[in-house]
Amino acid sequence: LEISEIGEFELINKFANTKKNSVPQGFLGIGDDCAVIPKDDNNSFLVTTDMLIEDIHFIRNRIDPVDLGFKSLAVNVSDIAGMGGIPVASFVSLSLPGDLSVEWVENFYRGYNELGALENVHLLGGDTTGSKMSIAISITVLGEISNDKIKYRSNARPGDLICVTDKLGDSSAGLKVVLDELEENELNQYLLSRHVRPYPHVKKGSMLSRFPGVTSMMDISDGIGSDFKHIANLSGVDGVFHLEKIPVTQPLIDFCKQYNYNLYDMAIYGGEDYSLLFTLSPCSYELIDKAYEEAFGEHIHVIGEVTEKQDKNRNRISFKTEKGVIDMSEGSFNHFRKRN
Amino acid sequence: LEISEIGEFELINKFANTKKNSVPQGFLGIGDDCAVIPKDDNNSFLVTTDMLIEDIHFIRNRIDPVDLGFKSLAVNVSDIAGMGGIPVASFVSLSLPGDLSVEWVENFYRGYNELGALENVHLLGGDTTGSKMSIAISITVLGEISNDKIKYRSNARPGDLICVTDKLGDSSAGLKVVLDELEENELNQYLLSRHVRPYPHVKKGSMLSRFPGVTSMMDISDGIGSDFKHIANLSGVDGVFHLEKIPVTQPLIDFCKQYNYNLYDMAIYGGEDYSLLFTLSPCSYELIDKAYEEAFGEHIHVIGEVTEKQDKNRNRISFKTEKGVIDMSEGSFNHFRKRN
Repeated sequence: LEISEIGEFELINKFANTKKNSVPQGFLGIGDDCAVIPKDDNNSFLVTTDMLIEDIHFIRNRIDPVDLGFKSLAVNVSDIAGMGGIPVASFVSLSLPGDLSVEWVENFYRGYNELGALENVHLLGGDTTGSKMSIAISITVLGEISNDKIKYRSNARPGDLICVTDKLGDSSAGLKVVLDELEENELNQYLLSRHVRPYPHVKKGSMLSRFPGVTSMMDISDGIGSDFKHIANLSGVDGVFHLEKIPVTQPLIDFCKQYNYNLYDMAIYGGEDYSLLFTLSPCSYELIDKAYEEAFGEHIHVIGEVTEKQDKNRNRISFKTEKGVIDMSEGSFNHFRKRN
Repeated sequence: LEISEIGEFELINKFANTKKNSVPQGFLGIGDDCAVIPKDDNNSFLVTTDMLIEDIHFIRNRIDPVDLGFKSLAVNVSDIAGMGGIPVASFVSLSLPGDLSVEWVENFYRGYNELGALENVHLLGGDTTGSKMSIAISITVLGEISNDKIKYRSNARPGDLICVTDKLGDSSAGLKVVLDELEENELNQYLLSRHVRPYPHVKKGSMLSRFPGVTSMMDISDGIGSDFKHIANLSGVDGVFHLEKIPVTQPLIDFCKQYNYNLYDMAIYGGEDYSLLFTLSPCSYELIDKAYEEAFGEHIHVIGEVTEKQDKNRNRISFKTEKGVIDMSEGSFNHFRKRN
């Protein structure tokens, strides 16, 4: 059996998740955005780690190393934000082919440190090693949070509102700009920047974490269609999205029209948004939306509701349109699947 | 300028180490075996991360994935031991080509979890992703230590004894067995096992950390010739090794005779020993050696002394033999150098 025949999630489930992985009191292991490690009586550390591999996650000559450095840290910081925490320290390991220019490395660190400075994340270590062929980047970020604020994926309840902290799909349109080598006009440049410079929603996550009415939260990395499944699965619920309420930007609408892409495919399954997906107790909505508006000058985007689980064998995620309710098809990045 | 023209250490110095990397009070960044992050008033977390890349650090069909899993965790746990800490949690990221067998991954985790169970290190997360060609492994280990026990590389003083916790060079002989595809007799099997199954010296490190007389400590990854330079550099001292006191095993002596290798090259520059190198105030020697003997049934190996720094531009490391004192030549792994 080859890895390509099963998927990333199955592989993790098979070897990591299902091990008699008993963790001590106060710890949380695999399954959420971050691991939780007790710090003192009232606070915990959050730890997350991500790998970015050349030709899987990025193409060397299609991304500015400054952007790649920025994004590499951003996607990890986003996981800390996904649980409501504040990032504190980072570790970056690079495996680099010998013929890579020193300037490339310098630029990578420039972007990396740019976000580090903006979010006050201290670079405390890492590893640098050679590589025969391709670049591998592995980043670990450690954050902090008080125990009563930690937001998990597992506490969404039927009746909760499903919400997001940003408009969706721009990043996946930006990826199309890269992959299809589209012209560099203003529209495409905007979408590209949303793809290569995702800004992690630390402030929004931290603000939302103050409210017990926020019942679950995670960052959006694979697209809400795929990511909400994790919440549904761990919370034992189903979910309904209101298609017309999915927030999208005008540039994305224009882009999809111009290049004939499906807007909702982009917004729901595109991925790499790195904003936050969360569920909200409806009776807390008014209070939290008011505080959110005061803090950020915008309203929470409510895009659906959590519903009772209908089928004990799976979590059903459907979407409502004017035409009725449609069951969602599968859709998630799977780097292992062979592309024909 | 290509990376191959400068080295790993220079690269780290250029971009990571020299950045205005001001860290908050109680934190320690790049430069030691681990980063230090304050936990509570009396304790800190230690964090270390290492990458292992196929065809740089290991050859896929020459190492059993069970051993590779064990070793991948061991080299990180060894960094925690190098500062005197106790490992607590680990994170493993794997970048895997799609045609790799699921069994390979299963075996990797078997070895990884074997050491995890022995040293009570909880696997709390990681990342699994695809790869076009080669396997990349990135591991982060988090340990704990009370602040008054942390052993740095920077506090060795002239007059201190230079010591190690194990006999040296077996691992590098084991590497020769792999690379030269030597016959699988009992001698070679022993040396090979020392190479693929290094056992991190957590208990020795933790025991030594109790004594203020232990002035500096680190784990031996590149060989004492290269590793002691870090202590010398950060402590502002020189060092003299007594060649005849370098502890070696009988199998290593036999191996070097049989295959015509230089015994001291192996023991001093071979690397991957993953035991501990430390310096000891001479007036504490008797006390600590007695406690060490009671705990481990063996004596501390004293192999040299720390001396006053002679040349302000470099740290001189020399070795004493019956024939006199000889300045040591450079010798360190450098994965970036092109091999001709």
